[in-house]
Parts: sequence; C-alpha cells; structure tokens
Amino acid sequence: MLAQGQGTIGVSATLVRGGTSKCWLFDVADIHGRGASTEEVLLAAFGARDHNQIDGVGGATSTTSKAAIVAHSYEPGVDIDYTFAQVGVGVERVEWGSNCGNCATAVGLYAVQSGLVRPRGDRTRVRMRNTNSAARIDAVVATPGARFRPTGDAVVPGVSSPGVPVGLEFLNPVGGRLLPTGRAVDTLEASGARARATLVDAGAPAALVDAASLGLTGAESVPEFAERLPGLLGLRRAAAIGMGLSTPDGPVSHAVPKLGLVGPATDYTTTGGARITAGEFDVSVRMASMHAPHPVIGLTSMVAVAAAATVPGSTVRAHAPAKSGEIRIGTAAGVVSASLSLARDGGLTGVTLHRSARVIARADIFVPAAREPAAAR
Amino acid sequence: MLAQGQGTIGVSATLVRGGTSKCWLFDVADIHGRGASTEEVLLAAFGARDHNQIDGVGGATSTTSKAAIVAHSYEPGVDIDYTFAQVGVGVERVEWGSNCGNCATAVGLYAVQSGLVRPRGDRTRVRMRNTNSAARIDAVVATPGARFRPTGDAVVPGVSSPGVPVGLEFLNPVGGRLLPTGRAVDTLEASGARARATLVDAGAPAALVDAASLGLTGAESVPEFAERLPGLLGLRRAAAIGMGLSTPDGPVSHAVPKLGLVGPATDYTTTGGARITAGEFDVSVRMASMHAPHPVIGLTSMVAVAAAATVPGSTVRAHAPAKSGEIRIGTAAGVVSASLSLARDGGLTGVTLHRSARVIARADIFVPAAREPAAAR
Repeated sequence: MLAQGQGTIGVSATLVRGGTSKCWLFDVADIHGRGASTEEVLLAAFGARDHNQIDGVGGATSTTSKAAIVAHSYEPGVDIDYTFAQVGVGVERVEWGSNCGNCATAVGLYAVQSGLVRPRGDRTRVRMRNTNSAARIDAVVATPGARFRPTGDAVVPGVSSPGVPVGLEFLNPVGGRLLPTGRAVDTLEASGARARATLVDAGAPAALVDAASLGLTGAESVPEFAERLPGLLGLRRAAAIGMGLSTPDGPVSHAVPKLGLVGPATDYTTTGGARITAGEFDVSVRMASMHAPHPVIGLTSMVAVAAAATVPGSTVRAHAPAKSGEIRIGTAAGVVSASLSLARDGGLTGVTLHRSARVIARADIFVPAAREPAAAR
Repeated sequence: MLAQGQGTIGVSATLVRGGTSKCWLFDVADIHGRGASTEEVLLAAFGARDHNQIDGVGGATSTTSKAAIVAHSYEPGVDIDYTFAQVGVGVERVEWGSNCGNCATAVGLYAVQSGLVRPRGDRTRVRMRNTNSAARIDAVVATPGARFRPTGDAVVPGVSSPGVPVGLEFLNPVGGRLLPTGRAVDTLEASGARARATLVDAGAPAALVDAASLGLTGAESVPEFAERLPGLLGLRRAAAIGMGLSTPDGPVSHAVPKLGLVGPATDYTTTGGARITAGEFDVSVRMASMHAPHPVIGLTSMVAVAAAATVPGSTVRAHAPAKSGEIRIGTAAGVVSASLSLARDGGLTGVTLHRSARVIARADIFVPAAREPAAAR
C-alpha cells in the first residue's frame, strides 16, 4: 500500500498468468477497508468504464479482466479461500457468480510465492476453497528442492510461453447427481434435428453430443464449428430442460449448460498449424461457451468430459475408457490431459488438470478514489 | 529491481496512461545491462510472442503495447531523453522508427513523479528530446502548489476517466518546408476524382483535403468515412508524389502522408453519442491512418492541422484563422484543441496540445531470462 497524494489510493496486487488467463490477485488485507468497496476498487483499478480499459490495469478482454481476492482460510483442512471476480469491460459491473479454473491455477502459484503456503518438497499442495461456488480445489505447485520457482517448463495449449507446472485437482466434482436424467445417453430433439448426448453435471453442467449422430466428427476447425453452432442451440435448450436447468417456456442461461461435440481421435491440424496424430490423444472435443466456440476448452468443461469418461455407455466412454486413470482431449488448440481419481466402486472422487502458471508482475496500483463514500461490500 | 530466483529477472517499470494510450515506462538504469538486450527484455516483459500477450504485461493492441525508455539528458536545455518502442503483438519485434505523442505525454508526467524533474510552481515544464525522431517536445505538467499530483480533472476525447492536465508543446514542428509544393492549395487528381488539398509537413506529412470539393462535409461518422476511404487512396498517392514522398512508380508508405477531410464546424453527434454544436469548435476534421479512419485524431496530425491554420488560403485557414492563437478541432470522438505560438512574421514556432495523463501502477515485472546470452542493443 502506498500513499500517492490526494484522490488516489495505492493497492498492492500481483499479476499472474494461470493457464490461458491473466488474473490480478489481491491479498484481502490490501483491498478491504480502503475507504471504498472491493467492487469500487476493482472497477477503478481495471478502468472498467472504458471498453478498452485504457485508464487501468485491465486487458479489455474476458480472459484478461479477471481478479481474485485471496485470504488465509479458517476452515480446517483448507489453506486458502479465494473469491473470483470477472471485472466488466466497458461496463462498471463485477460478476461474482462463478469460479474460474485458470485463476485457481494462478492463486495456487501466488499462495506459494507470497508465503501464505510454505513450500514442502518438490511439489507443494495448496488446499483452496472457492467462495463463489464453495468448490474445493487443490493446486499442486512444482517447488523443486522445496523452493518457490517463478517459472518452469510446463506449456499448455493456447500459450506459447512456458510456466510453472501446476496440477489443479477438483475434489468430489460431482455436486449433485452426475447424470441428472439418470441415463448415460439421452436423445435430444429440436426443430427436426436429433442427436445422442450424455448430460453430465460435474465441474459444470454439460451436454456432450455424439458428433457422429449429427454427421460431424468432433474434430471440426473453430470456423467450421462456429458455422454449425447456431443450428445446435435448439439441442442445447432441450438439454437444459432435460437437466432441470430451465423449463419449456423459461430462458436458458448463456453460461450453462456447456455444449460440446465428442468424437473419436483422428489426425488433425490445430488452429496454430501444428499437426496432431490420432495416437496422441483419446477423444476429440469441441466445446461452445456463451454461444461461441471455445478456442481450447474451459477447465470446468474438462472436468465434465473427464467425469463422462467414467460412465459406461456415455458418448465419451466409447473413445476414452476412464480406467487408465488419464484422459487426453484433442481440442482445436491442441491436446490437454486430465487425471482421474476413482473410488473402488468406480465413482469419481477427483479430476486433476495439468496446467501452467507464471508470476508476471508485482505492482502497486494507483486507484482514483471515488468522489463520494460508498457502502463497503 | 528484484531477484526472483533462477531464470527470471525483475525489472522496475511504471504504467502510465498518456491520452488514449497506455505506456510502460522504464528508467534506463533499470533496463540496461540486465544480461539481455533492451529489445529482449521488452519482448519478454510484454509477452509479445502470443497474439493476446497473455504471458506478459502488454495489452495486445497497438495502443496498449507501447513502452519508452527514459533517461536524464546530457543535452544543454533538455531534461529528459526518451526512446519510444512499439512492441509487437503476436510477433517478436520492436519498432523503433517513430515517436508517439501519447507516450510523450506519459513520459512528462512520469518525469515529475519519479523525481527526474522537480515540480516548480503550479505548472512544471519538462523539456524532452525524443531520440527516435530527434524532435524536441516540452510537457507542461499541472503541479498545483508545486507538488506532484497523480490524477486531476482533465478529460480528452476517447477516454472517459480524468487525468492530470499535460500540455504537450511541439517546438519548431516544421522540420523541412511547411509547404513542400510551395502552394497553399494543390489540386489532386486520381481515377477521375479531383480534390482541393493543402499539403503540409509539420508533425507529420499530411494531405488536408477540402471535404466540399469531394461533395463531403468533414463531419462524417467513422463508418461513413470508412466507406468512402478506399476511393480516396488514389488522391493520397497523388499527394505523396506531390510532396516528394514517393514517385509515380514507387510504393507509398501506409503511415505517411496522413490523409484528412476538412470542413466547416457543424452540429454533429460523436461516436459516443454526445451532441456537439457548431459553436463549440472551429473546424471539422476526419483523419485516416494506416488506411483506416482514426477514431479521434493522431497527435502528429493535430500538429499538421494547426500548422495549416497558419497558412493563408489553406483548406484549414478558411474555417480556423490561426491568429486567435487556438484551434478547436471537431473529431468523430469529440473536440480537441491546440494552441499555436507564432513568430512576428506569422511563422509557426510551436504547437501545444492539451492532453491528460495518469499514473496507473508501479511494478516489478518478472522477465523470463533468455535461454542463451545475446548481444546488448
């Protein structure tokens, strides 16, 4: 914290890349009780008002306008509580309704860097609770020789630069019922289109459509998928109703359920031009989010795909039997992999995603003070 | 400077908004001699390799991927030398060929904040030399009570947040001949189109076309101008040849000459929806740069328009006689103004642009060290 003269408060923060996102991380002690609410501080710090965030530290896109508030946890068995904030771009609003797996990765690395969690051995486990979703997630951070390292050699699709290897473990990711309809496969119908799909609720609710039942492969390019997507939104609505997320007359959230195409592994070329052979992965997946193709795959969607692999007869299981303990997913940007932890009865107890993170900068952000005092959040 | 463990170097830098750009400013002592060339440090710090600059502090657009290296000047009568760097987005290249007026504004504020120039009175003059172009520019920074203030109440079109008032004075902006053709007005012809234009060389070479001679007003919206622009590129080529910037068979730079439409003040609505009346400004201007309409107006183009106002008979002078000492320019984003300094013979000795700047953050950037040593720049 720095005093910077009248009308401005200095707030310490750390910029960390987690996977394919940039997140500004704030220690709760640095952002609370600063004469403005946390939301006001974030909006002013990011410059949310302008669509290009030109007067703040935001990056003016959904993946670069993220923050998290990090605190020591008082919950037994938990090290860190973190609260994720999606800061508006061109709108003075913060969305607090969801978690972000990429920011969770960033929080894990930050917890070790900042000393909130002490390095223990070559891999340090950071036990985290996301306060937005109440999800328990562990980050396993590479700390060779029990020392914090700011960078490493782990690379994830969508980022060409390497970072510290971080395993992100979603513990007991099945919140309610893994199969909300009770069936491994449902038939979705809308406007004359019919498709086979597995409807799962793990990580996030997702409709994982058998691409072949639509005459597709699951290995479409991003533009090809974008072209077909409008015709699939009716099927998504049918899935939302089937999963109890909406009613025939009700609206369907843009965020969930996630919609995905699933198909067999096949040789293909990534968006970046790399050639991938069928032997390098198990299952082709193309996910859509917010009515647009995801360039890679969201982390909560990865959990859903991994969970579906544990279900006999599901659209994913045909290509990727979970018993190997690992699933390699071919996305438009490249191959991502997840490890599964199974109970003796085959039930899913955890999904670990292999990610990377890097500390980019440590900063004092100068936040213009609000003109009038406002209630603290 | 911080040590952050093996493989990473910590480099101190300050993020400042200058006008409608964000610039990362580096003290020369913090970036030179760090075991890597300045160019390598900038590319790694910004994450230039990825088109979204996700692994660095860059903002992934041309206006948010800018840096300047700031140093004490040993030139008599000059306080600060600065070198502007346009850092690549998705390409590991730094362009050192041009100056940037918005970053000059940022450097002026930074010079006072960092103590390189001590505040003197309510307005502190920072005498700067841009090493890319050898241009002399003064920044006059508001320092009420002879104290640095991190923010203020000056607003410029294109940014909704206020900042510190900074006057940017281009000294003796006419490098060669103000009128390269020797005429106040030329007639440009291309593909059957004819237009009256003033060709000036101040700030940047510019062709300032009388909008009425093309059946236009100079108050077109950005989309309207974008639609007409392809048909005007032949006239731009004719201007480039007339000014000696190209030959009939040679290529024409995308950067210069700037092309602008000039017309009388008229009531209009800005891109942001604000209503402007004719009484609020002197001359309507719509500039194009890099074959696209500029959303506001570039600072070097502002200098060119201001300089043209000093020329009897020019396309600008009809609407904005320079003798008032000020010119108010109506752009698609709003009104910007410039002050002119004239010699007794009416010759132009300086143009002052009224800008704003704000210190956004002070940071230690953690730069991944290059795998192999490289020659210093």
